[in-house]
Amino acid sequence: MTKHIAKTNPGRFFEDFHPGLVLHHATPRTVTAGDVALTTAFYGARHALFSSAPFATACGLAAAPVDPLLVFHIVFGKSVPDISLNAVANLGYAEGRFLQPVEVGDTLTATSDVLGVKETSNGKSGVVYVRTTGRNRTGEAVLTYARWVLVRKRDPASPAPLDTTPDLAAVVPPADLVLPKGLDLSGYDFTLAGSAAAFEDYRVGERIDHVDGMVVEEAEAQMATRLYQNTAKVHFNQFERASDPTGRRLVYGGVVISTARALSFNGLENAGLWLAVNGGRHVNPFFAGATLFAWSEVLDARPIPGRKDVGALRLRLVATKDRPCHDFPDKDSTGAYPPEVVLDLDYWTAVPTRG
Amino acid sequence: MTKHIAKTNPGRFFEDFHPGLVLHHATPRTVTAGDVALTTAFYGARHALFSSAPFATACGLAAAPVDPLLVFHIVFGKSVPDISLNAVANLGYAEGRFLQPVEVGDTLTATSDVLGVKETSNGKSGVVYVRTTGRNRTGEAVLTYARWVLVRKRDPASPAPLDTTPDLAAVVPPADLVLPKGLDLSGYDFTLAGSAAAFEDYRVGERIDHVDGMVVEEAEAQMATRLYQNTAKVHFNQFERASDPTGRRLVYGGVVISTARALSFNGLENAGLWLAVNGGRHVNPFFAGATLFAWSEVLDARPIPGRKDVGALRLRLVATKDRPCHDFPDKDSTGAYPPEVVLDLDYWTAVPTRG
Amino acid sequence: MTKHIAKTNPGRFFEDFHPGLVLHHATPRTVTAGDVALTTAFYGARHALFSSAPFATACGLAAAPVDPLLVFHIVFGKSVPDISLNAVANLGYAEGRFLQPVEVGDTLTATSDVLGVKETSNGKSGVVYVRTTGRNRTGEAVLTYARWVLVRKRDPASPAPLDTTPDLAAVVPPADLVLPKGLDLSGYDFTLAGSAAAFEDYRVGERIDHVDGMVVEEAEAQMATRLYQNTAKVHFNQFERASDPTGRRLVYGGVVISTARALSFNGLENAGLWLAVNGGRHVNPFFAGATLFAWSEVLDARPIPGRKDVGALRLRLVATKDRPCHDFPDKDSTGAYPPEVVLDLDYWTAVPTRG
Repeated sequence: MTKHIAKTNPGRFFEDFHPGLVLHHATPRTVTAGDVALTTAFYGARHALFSSAPFATACGLAAAPVDPLLVFHIVFGKSVPDISLNAVANLGYAEGRFLQPVEVGDTLTATSDVLGVKETSNGKSGVVYVRTTGRNRTGEAVLTYARWVLVRKRDPASPAPLDTTPDLAAVVPPADLVLPKGLDLSGYDFTLAGSAAAFEDYRVGERIDHVDGMVVEEAEAQMATRLYQNTAKVHFNQFERASDPTGRRLVYGGVVISTARALSFNGLENAGLWLAVNGGRHVNPFFAGATLFAWSEVLDARPIPGRKDVGALRLRLVATKDRPCHDFPDKDSTGAYPPEVVLDLDYWTAVPTRG
Repeated sequence: MTKHIAKTNPGRFFEDFHPGLVLHHATPRTVTAGDVALTTAFYGARHALFSSAPFATACGLAAAPVDPLLVFHIVFGKSVPDISLNAVANLGYAEGRFLQPVEVGDTLTATSDVLGVKETSNGKSGVVYVRTTGRNRTGEAVLTYARWVLVRKRDPASPAPLDTTPDLAAVVPPADLVLPKGLDLSGYDFTLAGSAAAFEDYRVGERIDHVDGMVVEEAEAQMATRLYQNTAKVHFNQFERASDPTGRRLVYGGVVISTARALSFNGLENAGLWLAVNGGRHVNPFFAGATLFAWSEVLDARPIPGRKDVGALRLRLVATKDRPCHDFPDKDSTGAYPPEVVLDLDYWTAVPTRG
Repeated sequence: MTKHIAKTNPGRFFEDFHPGLVLHHATPRTVTAGDVALTTAFYGARHALFSSAPFATACGLAAAPVDPLLVFHIVFGKSVPDISLNAVANLGYAEGRFLQPVEVGDTLTATSDVLGVKETSNGKSGVVYVRTTGRNRTGEAVLTYARWVLVRKRDPASPAPLDTTPDLAAVVPPADLVLPKGLDLSGYDFTLAGSAAAFEDYRVGERIDHVDGMVVEEAEAQMATRLYQNTAKVHFNQFERASDPTGRRLVYGGVVISTARALSFNGLENAGLWLAVNGGRHVNPFFAGATLFAWSEVLDARPIPGRKDVGALRLRLVATKDRPCHDFPDKDSTGAYPPEVVLDLDYWTAVPTRG
């Protein structure tokens, strides 16, 4: 007779993390054509590269890649039961890189390395830094990113560990950006893609109001979050949330990012091939029923060494709730955000040149 | 340095349309098994031909075709950013013909030809007539239809163009109906299809109450509309809609049509293979949360030359909101509709004969 | 000219059923990758065997099987128009057995045999017992189960038929459980599956609180029910439901079962391969908007003759609405359930041994 073991996963607490710990996340996930259709149904994105197999192969790819953020959400979802079940808040992202496209039929697994820990001053919780990597069936990394989360301590009296806050890059260096194998945008069909705007047409400092607004419904947010097998209680358990001051389920931040990305099509039609996430913060909570708007700012524009067909834009994507973005709602000089701003994301993306 | 170009698509205004203008719509779209499953999830249709691959091949088709209206909605969606972003209303359809089945794996593109324009009497807007054609990967037309929309003028002071209202057929002539290549309904399995009613069993003038009612939820309407990559603001932007007298997002008319089509299964089990849309009007707006009902009327019944296995029925599909259809709610002698009627659609469909 | 036939299906009444009647249900259904993705989106289940093709093949299966309950729901849906359109209530299930896995691309059909009938004492309705069987394209049975429903009489004055209540087993005998062909769990990857708990770790009498809670939204319930082509009016027709004392659409019981199954992952990570349903009752109605919780009890644990890699657990799955399950809400000594309990299901499932 074996020793009885606990069946229910209580989640890790701050004390359970230490630098060097490697977590092998559960539930491998085969990506299907159904996931692709649901991604369209949830967000309505229209980037040709992810919508049309012939368009993708005309761009040199072996098959139509799935939306990079679908990969991000699935990999992120796997990490939740091991990292953020007892998280108070998801504080930020850095050093995110999309390393190769994922296609329908690929199976994703994920692991996380704990990079560092730092107890908060009140001693009740601490910040855990992890680097999560998603891999395809053959074990090749397809995505890697760092994130840090605020995690409750099991016992407030347990001693603070050594502060091992890692050094994370503010921006992924352009030299570290990886283009999909075979990508060739020299024959890119700007008409079919929906805009004539090429890499050369974007100026650093330029701001783009994406104009359109879109409601996120409770059912949509839940279905998307479940599709990613993300089990964080705050997104599903209304009974428990009723005792939160907001009284509401939180919409998974990834739903906000993907909705804002889809809205950004109107102005960034040819900029859908995200290569890296430099940083990102959910600066205010988003609840279902609100209308999401977005605007973008061009932070940098870099040629890619050895390439004439494609350049890299560094963009900032800001999303708001129930506030149109013609006046580009932004943080003030103290870094404080208006209450309507919900997302501030900094990323690199590949954009075809005029050739 | 290139000239700076505007990034956001403001949409065309009435002045931007003239007969002969050809619009190449953006975002090619590969149809997937996910789209098929979502179509079932949104509407619950049960026509065997679109539900079962073996049933379809037993009917002589190379593979299971996707629901004809899925093709319509995708092609329609592509035309929205170029035609109806500044539309006040979608006024009607005519001369719609399904030219060949679309299968999972096909990629759809769409173009529109402007057929004519006519300024309205108040000078603030005008009617634009277009013919939109959807094509598969090899460029063959799969669907063509005319529609006319009321579009705002950019400048009310701009002069009225010549009235070039096109002549559109009131009914697609039976000789122009195209059956899918290979279709052979001589061995049609009426039991598996759910009804013994064959072509011979429908009489001109017969009315059928489809009995069942179905709610359309806000999340369902949005997800369907996004799946079709239809970006019309009225379906998504609640913040803006709050200042409309109704205060509500409008449900995309195609969702109403597909829901009514699915309800019509109860009485028209063997009439799912739509061949043409003669005309259609959304006679009242439909908002999420209401229960949709439907009834049908047999307008015509024609043998198809050279075919013993299949005939063509011309049907009228009327849908209502929050009103059962046992008394066949209809327009009155002046052509005015009761407020509960939301759709009046006239179409041709193929129905197996008793053989 | 043929005799005119009624078009709309009014559904069978109690008088229309008699033992020996065989019903061939309509609408064959090809299972797709879209159905699999939607199943994940509706419930968020994380059992590796149904989530990852490589995991499934590593377990000896030819391909990733679809979730057994997806098969159940599709087969059940087909039987609704022939059996339960005029049902007052679905009273129970027994003798359910999953006979072989269903894969993407399989096409399901269903038939039902009427096992018996028994008029209720008030003479207004009667209980109909049926055995429904789902088959794949080659006609092999993939699922069989008995259920009994309370059906209205067409005419209360019609005489009571002979009571032919069938003898149904309280529990499927372990010897009748069928493992999927080729299944070999000797190399089962417990880490990837999310828990180290093996067959040996579960004790008869053990209770497991699955902790997490999940809201079912109206749109989610409707979409799932439509995906199964289940047309029962109570799930869709709000206009009619408004005159019911509850005023609400009922959530399809299968949605409750699948949600509870998904919640049960937290504690039963390796017990997703359901083999049989011994019995089940929806003991209270469930309406959208409530948070569903679940707990399980181990009723029996049996080795499987000739197998060292896998054993069979008999489990009880109890689901509640708006009530966490740390205190295992249950029926009292009289068999009466607290109002928060909505489901009491008894099933067999395969669980890998430690080897």
